[in-house]
Order: sequence, then C-alpha cells, then structure tokens
Amino acid sequence: MADNSPEAVREMVAASPFHVWFGMRVANISEGLCDIELDVTPEHRNLIGTTHGGVVSTMADTAIGLAVRTTLSGDSRHVTTQLNVTYLEKVDSGRLLAAGRVVRSGSRLAYGEADVRDEEGRLVARAAATFAVIPVKD
Amino acid sequence: MADNSPEAVREMVAASPFHVWFGMRVANISEGLCDIELDVTPEHRNLIGTTHGGVVSTMADTAIGLAVRTTLSGDSRHVTTQLNVTYLEKVDSGRLLAAGRVVRSGSRLAYGEADVRDEEGRLVARAAATFAVIPVKD
Amino acid sequence: MADNSPEAVREMVAASPFHVWFGMRVANISEGLCDIELDVTPEHRNLIGTTHGGVVSTMADTAIGLAVRTTLSGDSRHVTTQLNVTYLEKVDSGRLLAAGRVVRSGSRLAYGEADVRDEEGRLVARAAATFAVIPVKD
Amino acid sequence: MADNSPEAVREMVAASPFHVWFGMRVANISEGLCDIELDVTPEHRNLIGTTHGGVVSTMADTAIGLAVRTTLSGDSRHVTTQLNVTYLEKVDSGRLLAAGRVVRSGSRLAYGEADVRDEEGRLVARAAATFAVIPVKD
Repeated sequence: MADNSPEAVREMVAASPFHVWFGMRVANISEGLCDIELDVTPEHRNLIGTTHGGVVSTMADTAIGLAVRTTLSGDSRHVTTQLNVTYLEKVDSGRLLAAGRVVRSGSRLAYGEADVRDEEGRLVARAAATFAVIPVKD
Repeated sequence: MADNSPEAVREMVAASPFHVWFGMRVANISEGLCDIELDVTPEHRNLIGTTHGGVVSTMADTAIGLAVRTTLSGDSRHVTTQLNVTYLEKVDSGRLLAAGRVVRSGSRLAYGEADVRDEEGRLVARAAATFAVIPVKD
Repeated sequence: MADNSPEAVREMVAASPFHVWFGMRVANISEGLCDIELDVTPEHRNLIGTTHGGVVSTMADTAIGLAVRTTLSGDSRHVTTQLNVTYLEKVDSGRLLAAGRVVRSGSRLAYGEADVRDEEGRLVARAAATFAVIPVKD
Repeated sequence: MADNSPEAVREMVAASPFHVWFGMRVANISEGLCDIELDVTPEHRNLIGTTHGGVVSTMADTAIGLAVRTTLSGDSRHVTTQLNVTYLEKVDSGRLLAAGRVVRSGSRLAYGEADVRDEEGRLVARAAATFAVIPVKD
C-alpha cells in the first residue's frame, strides 16, 4: 500500500533524485492541489536564453500528477497518458510556480490542469494532463 | 543573423548547458529532421521508478524544435506555443531516441511531430508541437 | 473592416447556415466571453446513443473562437490552429452550454478555453484552442 | 455482443442519423484503419467562408474512433477521452478525406491518429485521439 497523503507525497518529492536534480520543490500540497516551485538557473535555459519549454512542461506534469496522487487510495497508482501545454509568455529568470489541481479523479481515469506563473504573476503556460489509474499489484 | 544549418545547430547543442545537464545529444540532424538521444540515469526516474514524463516530453520538444530550426532562415527564430504528448509505454532504463520531423514550416507558424522510442524500438510516446516563427530584431 | 462587436457577432451567427444547421445559438456574448447553447437531437448522437464528441468539440471551438473574435480589431481575423478537447462525461440529451473565454489575445496569437456543461451543470468537456491572428487584406 | 467487424461498422455508419446528417461516409475500412469522406456544402462553412474547424475535427474523431472500433472484441466498447487537432490549411470546397489509423489498442486505452486531406492531397489537419476501452455490460 502506498501512502498518498499530502505530507507523504511532500516527503517523497524532497527525497527524490529526479525532483532534486531538476530543482523542483513542493511549495504547497493538499488533497487535489499541488504547487511546485523552481528557481530558474542557467541549466534551465534554451539556446535563446529563455526557460526551456521542457522545464515548464515538466513542472506542470509534476504539479498535476502529484495533485492527482493525493486523491488516490493506497492500492492504486497513476501514469500520465497525455500532456498538453500551451506556452503564453517567455520567462528568463526568477522563481516559477506551477499550480496543479485535479478536475476529475475516477476509478480508471484522472484529469487535471495547471497554471505556471512567474514571480510577477504572469501566466507563463497553461497545461492539462490525463492519467490512467491502475490497481497496484502487491 | 543566426546560423541555422544542421551542423551549427549540432554544435550549439553540444555546448549548451541545458542540453548537457539534461543528458541530451543530437544523434542525427539534417534539414527538417533531428534525432535526440538520452541515456536514462537515476535522475530521470519518477517516484515509481520509470522515466519521468517530463523527460520524454522535453526530448520530444527539443527534437521537433531543432528540426524546425534547420528550416528557418537566419533572420527568424521560433518559440514553442503548444506541445502535446501521448505516452504509450513505460520505460525504465537504456537509451531513448526522439525522432523529430517538420510537417509544416511557414512564415508565421511551424508544426512538427516526434516519435520517442526505446532501445528495442518500442514506441514510448508520440508528440506534436506548434511554433510561432518570429522575425529576429538585430 | 469587419464588425467584431458582440452584437454584430451574435447577428452573424443567427444568420449563418453552419450554425443554424448545427443547432448552435449564442446564449451570451460580451468582450472576451461567448456562451454557445445547443439542444441535443437524434442527429447529434453517435452509434452508442450519446452525443458525438464532434458535437462537443465543435461547440467548444465555436465558443472560444467567437470569444476571441470580440477582442479583435476590425482589420484582423483569426483562424484556429489547434484544438484540444478532454471529454469528462457522456451526455445523452437535453441542452448543452459551451462557455468560451479568452485567456490571451495578442497581435499574432490568441488562446482561449471552454467548459461544456449539461443542464445539471456537470462538466462534460474542457477545451483549449489556439488561433493565428492575421491582418485582413482589403 | 457488438459486431465490430469492418463490414458491420460500415453498415452502421451508413444507417446512422448522425453520420448521414453530417455528410460523412466510410470510404474504406479494414482492421485498424478507417477513411471517412465528406463533400463540403454551404452548411459546413464558417463565418469567413472556409470549412469550420469543427467539421474537420469531427471527421478526424470519427475516422480514428471507427478504426479503433474494428480492433475491439465484441464485449468492449470505446469512448473518446481526448482529441487534439492541428489545422494546417484552410479548405473552401470539394471532397475531404480523413484517414484514421490505430497506433495502439490495449485492454484499457486505445490511441490513434488521422490525416485530413483535400482533393489535391494537401494536408488540411493532423489529429490524435485517445480512448478509454470499457467492458460492455450485457
């Protein structure tokens, strides 16, 4: 049985090599909601000096996915099946915040969305993700 | 004026902090086509031990974006406006290859697609990206 | 010069063969917002008796597109470049409402979203659309 | 038990009020593939005189969905969960062909894509759709 409580998810992310490497932290998490923050470093910038689209889409996927996780019972898990991101503003530096929320969490499918904003609150991207919910085999 | 020739793009990527940090290399590049490869390391894995969706989507975005870049004249550049990724297989380890290709490259918009495959040739993800093409201000 | 005022758009839709054939009406329209309604008839149902996904996606595309239109000056027009729809509930009958809103309207690109709901207010679908904004040649 | 054979699907579509009303016909169908054709009439045109995006997206959804149906056993059915369409060319008149194909058909999820082309073979749109596969309750 997995522990999908917000506090357990926060601790798993803090200890996760992927999230640490990427520079992502859980800023806030509660049932059905997860905010991910990242401070833009030179490694996050593309060839023209702005934050790479992949950084933004990874933040969004992570924020939505963790928000979904808090809504699952311990005997199911989720995998992303689809991610759609629309990029609205370039961002060069500073702190980014991806605010993920669950729109629908069912027994087979889950769906959520995220806003990614910069420090001034500008909407950098909007994202939507769909997940398959799968029974965990013990 | 930017140099958008395949060889120039390959050199830029090899020297780019983002691409080096991420572990992405240009495997092949020619006009309208770009293959990006990445060897999965522990940093690329999510909380359940498979390659994070953000790694796959970043590879796809990069492969399509660089393929588009080779089709642009030196006085224009492109920014991703939309990225859609469908995840079809989990992948735990080994080398991933994102094969990007331009479907349409116009004076205002460009559109391309990518297949991401693992070492056995399984289709891990399909992606599509749209780009705004913008005149470079000198 | 096109007249893109909400009242002009409402009148154009009421006289448009496409919208009349489809059964779509403008329920509400103001700058940056457009609600489209449709009463489900047998022609709107797919082989398993529920409203066809194409009916829902067409309503969403129309609601977002007309919302965008109200934000354009008379010397520009818009064409849909991308439409993404996530279907969340089946709907068999009754009145559907697609509430479209503009999230971003720029000189080259516009982006908007729509909720499609049934009479009980259930969220049937979420949609996002991107548009190229193009100068009108007189 | 539903009959999902290509010939049965072709007959169902020919007798379906939705497909007849819309003007869609099955041009070709075989396991995992379905081509839908439509002759553009004035009812299919939007306010600026080109084929409405909803017509194109409905054709794509239908072609992919019927292609998926031919891959299902008679005791399961599918519902569209996601549709993504990128519009590449305007089209005013003539015959449109949406060529749908299954990329993946599993026990829980199916995924397919479609090209929509005009009579000259120009690529009008590219589409991708995801489906939930659901056991039929007798």
